[in-house]
Amino acid sequence: MIDPDTNRPAHIPFALTILGAGSATPTLRLHQTAQLLTIGNDYILIDCGEGTQTRLLEQRIRPGRLRYIFISHLHGDHYFGLAPLLSSLNLGGRTEDLYLFGPRGLDEVLTTIFRVSNSQLGYKLHFQIVDPDQPVLLLDHPLITVQSIPLQHRIDCTGYLFREKPHKPHLLREKLPDTVPVTYLKQLKNGQDILDADGRVLYAAAEYTEPGPTPRSYAYCSDTRYVDSLIPQLHGVNLLYHEATFLEDNAARAAEVFHSTAKQAASIAAQAQVGKLLIGHFSSRYKQFNLFLDEARSVFPETYLAIEGETTAV
Amino acid sequence: MIDPDTNRPAHIPFALTILGAGSATPTLRLHQTAQLLTIGNDYILIDCGEGTQTRLLEQRIRPGRLRYIFISHLHGDHYFGLAPLLSSLNLGGRTEDLYLFGPRGLDEVLTTIFRVSNSQLGYKLHFQIVDPDQPVLLLDHPLITVQSIPLQHRIDCTGYLFREKPHKPHLLREKLPDTVPVTYLKQLKNGQDILDADGRVLYAAAEYTEPGPTPRSYAYCSDTRYVDSLIPQLHGVNLLYHEATFLEDNAARAAEVFHSTAKQAASIAAQAQVGKLLIGHFSSRYKQFNLFLDEARSVFPETYLAIEGETTAV
Repeated sequence: MIDPDTNRPAHIPFALTILGAGSATPTLRLHQTAQLLTIGNDYILIDCGEGTQTRLLEQRIRPGRLRYIFISHLHGDHYFGLAPLLSSLNLGGRTEDLYLFGPRGLDEVLTTIFRVSNSQLGYKLHFQIVDPDQPVLLLDHPLITVQSIPLQHRIDCTGYLFREKPHKPHLLREKLPDTVPVTYLKQLKNGQDILDADGRVLYAAAEYTEPGPTPRSYAYCSDTRYVDSLIPQLHGVNLLYHEATFLEDNAARAAEVFHSTAKQAASIAAQAQVGKLLIGHFSSRYKQFNLFLDEARSVFPETYLAIEGETTAV
Repeated sequence: MIDPDTNRPAHIPFALTILGAGSATPTLRLHQTAQLLTIGNDYILIDCGEGTQTRLLEQRIRPGRLRYIFISHLHGDHYFGLAPLLSSLNLGGRTEDLYLFGPRGLDEVLTTIFRVSNSQLGYKLHFQIVDPDQPVLLLDHPLITVQSIPLQHRIDCTGYLFREKPHKPHLLREKLPDTVPVTYLKQLKNGQDILDADGRVLYAAAEYTEPGPTPRSYAYCSDTRYVDSLIPQLHGVNLLYHEATFLEDNAARAAEVFHSTAKQAASIAAQAQVGKLLIGHFSSRYKQFNLFLDEARSVFPETYLAIEGETTAV
């Protein structure tokens, strides 16, 4: 894919679609937590509240491209849609492997559900238990790596950091003499100079290339109280989702139930110097989501509401 | 409650609301199976597909009045909404006992789900395993009895028969002389004559009462192949719900997967001489539900489609 403005390879698609931005109490305004991350041709599902498969249908997202699912924790509003989705993929005739990451216990729930219904999946479900206590590299994908982010909630809870791999330099074809053999191009793109038989530089990589785009990154911090030890791991990410269940008027309640306020989410974003903050998981007690936005922007102006159905480029 | 037309006690509310009429493959046209039966002041939930709690919200049905839940079988489209609903009742502060009836294994699924989330329900959930092989009296409620209906599906599956208890006779107050002591009225209503000291009839119950309304009944036949041995148990019910996943053009497929066609559902209704038939659980392969109606009505004219959000008096 070529960007028509620069005549250079365009960014690989890397974007986040909000499927559910509500918290545990069901309402008709918001659905429960689920997000879809698009990276290249792959879909990654992050949490899977009840009804997530219906959200995918509504957004015309084909579940066949789903390859990875990351579950943050075992409160129902973050995973009760998973068994239904896995069942429907099976009904739909899926045969491709699917990779599931989540807390210990998730496998037992799924195994029990499929056993009592006498169901066997027609595809292989790879399950990896995520250590809730330390950051671990979970996935080394051709385009990204995924690392866990230990959060602090009432039960084991993990966020996820999706970090694009470094891009190779761009070749400045217009600067290259026509006489350069095609076989040299790959070497230049890899940053290697072209030498003659005596070891002298014929074509310097630095002269005929420019650095590739800066790798992008998305961090998902699901249910958690304010934890400033997260800041180093989140430093400089392009996009941070951080829960904001409460406003500061309920900061005591937030602490009690291991949730965050909008201001606390913004404070994490500011200290970690992220590019943009998305907040969500709004408690049903608040009728105006703009209150969350105002409170967070007073601390971190580049805050946005997680709005169901909207897609944000990472 | 007095019926203004007859000046007699009106029927106790006994009505069925369809919450989901779809089958296993999720679509944006239909939700998965769930029904709400209102009897007096109690709500009874029958099956609980994914998203049922949202259906209740949409219909403005207060889950606080929910006392009984009957699950037919452990295919996900009939019960994946149950753990979410039970969790939300808990979040909502429920303390009243809740009575759950369903197949063996359902308790294990729920126990596992609540254990891994470290959750304890604030209300008592009474679970009764339903024997899938024979009709059993499951509930003796003040207004109704509930009996199981053994069905034939790919896994253990049970329907439920909700039968109103006989009503007491109506007192014909306008025929009673003003001189009748009030204390006699209850006795007359119970069908007992009032005798004098010598045993002679002073007031004959038959003369001053008329029979109460005929008890009503609703039978729910969830996923099942055509089983004519059901007919005696279903005989004469006012309202029968019978699944109709396929049309006759797919009768072979229906038999293979232990489902019924619209014509088969109608045939059961006709042979059982029921008052009215509701059909549902339509396969997503059919785009016109009226085809189901036409096929069934050719055999049993009093057939109606199960339409989500609509309520039918039993």
